[in-house]
Amino acid sequence: MFDRMAEKITPRTQDFSEWYQDVVLQAKLADYSPVKGCMVIRPNGYAIWERIQSNLDRRIKKTGVRNAYFPLFIPESFLKKEADHVEGFAPQCAVVTYAGSKDLEEKLVVRPTSETIINSMFARWVQSYRDLPLLINQWANVVRWEMRTRLFLRTTEFLWQEGHTCHATPEEAEQETRQMLQVYVDFAEEILAMPVVPGLKSESEKFAGALRTYSIEAMMQDKKALQAGTSHNLASNFAKAFGTQFLDSDGKQKFVHQTSWGVSTRLIGGMIMTHSDDKGLVLPPRLATTHVVIVPILGNSPMKPQVLEAADKLAQAIRDAAGKSALPYEIGVDVDRDETKQPGWKFHEHELVGTPLRVEIGPRDLEKGQAVLTRRDTGAKEFIAIGQLPEKAVTLLAEIQAGLLEKARAFRDANTFTVRSYDEFKSKIDSGGFFVAPWCQDKACEGRVKEDTKATIRCLPLGSDFTPIAETEPCMVCGRSESNRVRAIFARAY
Amino acid sequence: MFDRMAEKITPRTQDFSEWYQDVVLQAKLADYSPVKGCMVIRPNGYAIWERIQSNLDRRIKKTGVRNAYFPLFIPESFLKKEADHVEGFAPQCAVVTYAGSKDLEEKLVVRPTSETIINSMFARWVQSYRDLPLLINQWANVVRWEMRTRLFLRTTEFLWQEGHTCHATPEEAEQETRQMLQVYVDFAEEILAMPVVPGLKSESEKFAGALRTYSIEAMMQDKKALQAGTSHNLASNFAKAFGTQFLDSDGKQKFVHQTSWGVSTRLIGGMIMTHSDDKGLVLPPRLATTHVVIVPILGNSPMKPQVLEAADKLAQAIRDAAGKSALPYEIGVDVDRDETKQPGWKFHEHELVGTPLRVEIGPRDLEKGQAVLTRRDTGAKEFIAIGQLPEKAVTLLAEIQAGLLEKARAFRDANTFTVRSYDEFKSKIDSGGFFVAPWCQDKACEGRVKEDTKATIRCLPLGSDFTPIAETEPCMVCGRSESNRVRAIFARAY
Repeated sequence: MFDRMAEKITPRTQDFSEWYQDVVLQAKLADYSPVKGCMVIRPNGYAIWERIQSNLDRRIKKTGVRNAYFPLFIPESFLKKEADHVEGFAPQCAVVTYAGSKDLEEKLVVRPTSETIINSMFARWVQSYRDLPLLINQWANVVRWEMRTRLFLRTTEFLWQEGHTCHATPEEAEQETRQMLQVYVDFAEEILAMPVVPGLKSESEKFAGALRTYSIEAMMQDKKALQAGTSHNLASNFAKAFGTQFLDSDGKQKFVHQTSWGVSTRLIGGMIMTHSDDKGLVLPPRLATTHVVIVPILGNSPMKPQVLEAADKLAQAIRDAAGKSALPYEIGVDVDRDETKQPGWKFHEHELVGTPLRVEIGPRDLEKGQAVLTRRDTGAKEFIAIGQLPEKAVTLLAEIQAGLLEKARAFRDANTFTVRSYDEFKSKIDSGGFFVAPWCQDKACEGRVKEDTKATIRCLPLGSDFTPIAETEPCMVCGRSESNRVRAIFARAY
Repeated sequence: MFDRMAEKITPRTQDFSEWYQDVVLQAKLADYSPVKGCMVIRPNGYAIWERIQSNLDRRIKKTGVRNAYFPLFIPESFLKKEADHVEGFAPQCAVVTYAGSKDLEEKLVVRPTSETIINSMFARWVQSYRDLPLLINQWANVVRWEMRTRLFLRTTEFLWQEGHTCHATPEEAEQETRQMLQVYVDFAEEILAMPVVPGLKSESEKFAGALRTYSIEAMMQDKKALQAGTSHNLASNFAKAFGTQFLDSDGKQKFVHQTSWGVSTRLIGGMIMTHSDDKGLVLPPRLATTHVVIVPILGNSPMKPQVLEAADKLAQAIRDAAGKSALPYEIGVDVDRDETKQPGWKFHEHELVGTPLRVEIGPRDLEKGQAVLTRRDTGAKEFIAIGQLPEKAVTLLAEIQAGLLEKARAFRDANTFTVRSYDEFKSKIDSGGFFVAPWCQDKACEGRVKEDTKATIRCLPLGSDFTPIAETEPCMVCGRSESNRVRAIFARAY
């Protein structure tokens, strides 16, 4: 396998979707499994998930949330207790009908999400206002039967975290929903270097069973939108279905107000489609395991031992420099000593898997006291004195992380348009991008856009980033000015 | 809920099994779920699992293993490809028969273990001897339909890690099997403070599909054995079933030689039954999140602000002392500021959840420049000068960790007996313990012991800890000296 010259990656301009698949498979991030719609996450991909988990887990815990684990199986009757919820999820459920060599009395659904099973426990655990807020998260696998799947982006089984909280008042639930949305925004931008728009989902796009759904939306390099995380205000919908009540300090029994929020292995797909290029994966340093690879150029040189020794010393010097720096993570530095491969093959391989920095050092470099340092993101190469290389490498890692976010943000901004006329929108939608427009909040207008153009409302963006469009303008679709207009982002999406 | 005075814990001497359940439920480690046999791991319990995961994961990775993730579902036909494997697992399987509102063409088994689905991928990934060894681990949930379940010890769904490796030769596979067994021994003793006997399973107790199974066996406080981890040499059994072959350096196609090995959330149950007492959980410091709790004794004292300030300062001083010490982990120090609870209630509560050290400090203590330091494991209390307390606390944490292992080891050794006569064995088995005896390796003798006494062969212990019994002595059960005798440990087990 390691002998094979890597296959060619389809260029993005030729076929974006083929390009994506080529990168995922050739960088050995994931593979198709024999089970329809289920993927295998290979070590290179799982290492990225581990970085995501450990960083996000820390952020979630900082807000006072604790991890727990709830059963994989949900009795079928539980799912049916919340009417919208079962309507939304039943068509996607995988169902266990026999177990232990017997037909089950009650069928068990493999969790598509855990609001119902968790509420059955919350109803037992919550008694008094002193038990609130109850802040729980779980890292788990979930199953949603999908017809059309795509590695990381949409798979029958995926890994995620799902937070579930109970609060005494509607205000606190709304505050928690928004707080976790902000955690996702910060995480996506600081760690994945993926700029996102936080916003409110339209009624027709909200979570089945929620009062209100917020999401973060990212723009991929093909200018399509990717929903990268959601945070739901569930009000008391599940609490009423399961009897999750508490005795308040005023002596009255009340239903709790709840939230749930989650991000999944889909983030890996989003990160790939945000940064990677025709050579393969471009990995933000915060997600890398190996940050710097040193390739000694040996050939048949009699200086081989000296070059290898210099490479090892340099590796240690880079680790030391990172340790002493303000870099908020530990870095991995490898020396690629494999003598069965040519340097050219190695360069190609390290580009494919996205190692942020590459150092080349050969006998002639050693004589001159220098080495070649190459950035994966820009491809920029420079000769640099060995003594200065460690500090430079550390500086570059921070620059690459910041640069990837900036570049992606500039790309998104350049492809975000304000539109007021439906004709203009229809003439532009085929070239992709985010379209910010006034919308009358009528489902009919939302539906018409989808039918005409396959674009959907990604969100009603929060904040003031899109002020060129005033909420007082007439609806882009129907032109009416009677009902409450809002600013909506229309786009084609994954 | 926090108002309720904690219920009474059944004493161990009265009913060990009730005691265990009381500790698990009252310390809020786990709870029963509405799904038969499935448990909910509550935050106090899950925090222990997170400690187990992060430490063991580091040890596994140190041996060169990388994490990955394979599908939850296994096509039914895969399970049938290895004859012993399907015979062992089929009766315990939960099966998905419809999904996405349709009957499935091929039923999907919820993984009881992943040798088959993983081999279907290994068969694709392994081509050449240069791809070997292939060393993979996954952290996952698995499902085995159990009739009689017990929180943590035996549940329908449980969490575990399962390692799966491929090697070029039988010798390397055996070496890997033994290496991972040793990783489990070290982990159990150094982190869980749970002494274990590593050994070989008898033919009738080995993993369905393995050539050979090793296990680590621990003794609980009721003198029953608990199998705490297993490591299997699978030979080429699964490789042949799935065609996992490689082109060796001699130009020949060969089947890989494989291993698999795992530990699960059962370890938490084992840890509880090893150390805990009639007041609740006793937690080895390596598994604690809060290592020291400081309880300010306030009453109506006018010195309340001073006491609270002293408590906060002390907490920071303990953290600092730990940071500067050789203690190989970060410690958590909490000040229990809850003014709605009495100190007595708090002492009880912190004992229940197993916090290793408790500090009490009140106005009179403050005047004298002292505090009270209490160990959870022994209950020993002492007055100590506030200036000396931080270093003392750090020393005690190390002492508690070592002391728990020593105590458990002494208990096990005191209840491990060598027996040569079957009558003697039968007269002693009811009082519990490990019985080391010569065995002729005949299944009939093994079966007879089980029928007569409910005891099973836990393992054929490795190493020389049990040399009083020579392998040349006649079988304890049948008295024969013809066949190959071995030393076996007989015990009743969980």
